[in-house]
Amino acid sequence: MIENTSLQIGGDDMASHDPDCVFCKIVKGEIPSVKVFENDDVYAFLDLGQVTKGHTLVIPKIHQRNIYELTPETAEKVFAVVPKIARAIKEELQPIGMNLLNNNEEPAMQSVFHYHVHLIPRYGKGDGFGAVWKTHETSSEDMKAIADTIASGINE
Amino acid sequence: MIENTSLQIGGDDMASHDPDCVFCKIVKGEIPSVKVFENDDVYAFLDLGQVTKGHTLVIPKIHQRNIYELTPETAEKVFAVVPKIARAIKEELQPIGMNLLNNNEEPAMQSVFHYHVHLIPRYGKGDGFGAVWKTHETSSEDMKAIADTIASGINE
Repeated sequence: MIENTSLQIGGDDMASHDPDCVFCKIVKGEIPSVKVFENDDVYAFLDLGQVTKGHTLVIPKIHQRNIYELTPETAEKVFAVVPKIARAIKEELQPIGMNLLNNNEEPAMQSVFHYHVHLIPRYGKGDGFGAVWKTHETSSEDMKAIADTIASGINE
Repeated sequence: MIENTSLQIGGDDMASHDPDCVFCKIVKGEIPSVKVFENDDVYAFLDLGQVTKGHTLVIPKIHQRNIYELTPETAEKVFAVVPKIARAIKEELQPIGMNLLNNNEEPAMQSVFHYHVHLIPRYGKGDGFGAVWKTHETSSEDMKAIADTIASGINE
């Protein structure tokens, strides 16, 4: 059973942690990690499974499961930091490209259920990362219907 | 040659567009698109090459090439919106997962050089998307050295 414990971390009064979450334990220093960056709200560290050299994870300090649970406030805090880290990786490690990947739920390859973005510097084909990418032809009518369906569900 | 033209779009006084950029043309309505969402700073539309049903692109209205050029302000605006669209896709199309992918520079599969995030709803294996993911064993010493190198390049 997952139990949330209210804690005060950084500037976020409603911060909460999941005592069973590996990334929450990393944030609290209960599990070691190779830190790249930290501020009041965000923590960045190297993925133990380095897909490419410099493969970094950026996470919010508070526990939010994935993109579906991410509040706009938390998303803003995380992504205010991501470009800075991306630029530092580019300048220091000189990759020729970079992929950012965020996996949500198990069928989409999420394995730790605390929101995280992978920064994967690229050094060329066969460097460890790639995408399977197969497009499906969709009629204009179907496209319009899909877009309208999604739009109807957006809560502003 | 790329020439930037200053325009007033939304609340961003310094907004600029690249007259040769396909996504700038979409934002300005010069090229049609299948719109999912729009506010003063952000535009979301279906990718014409639907990798899976509901495959959506979220972009800032101003022209910033990729994650390296993305300002914290623009990143915040884009990612304040992304979770809302992700939740709408989940509610309306009922995928079993979702991958968010952002490609930067050509070797990392960027094809339009205006920052964009792919929201790719997942419906199961073989649905069109997947990741090549090969990890490389890295010693603790090397990990520490890589992290310190990146950290030294972060400008706060």
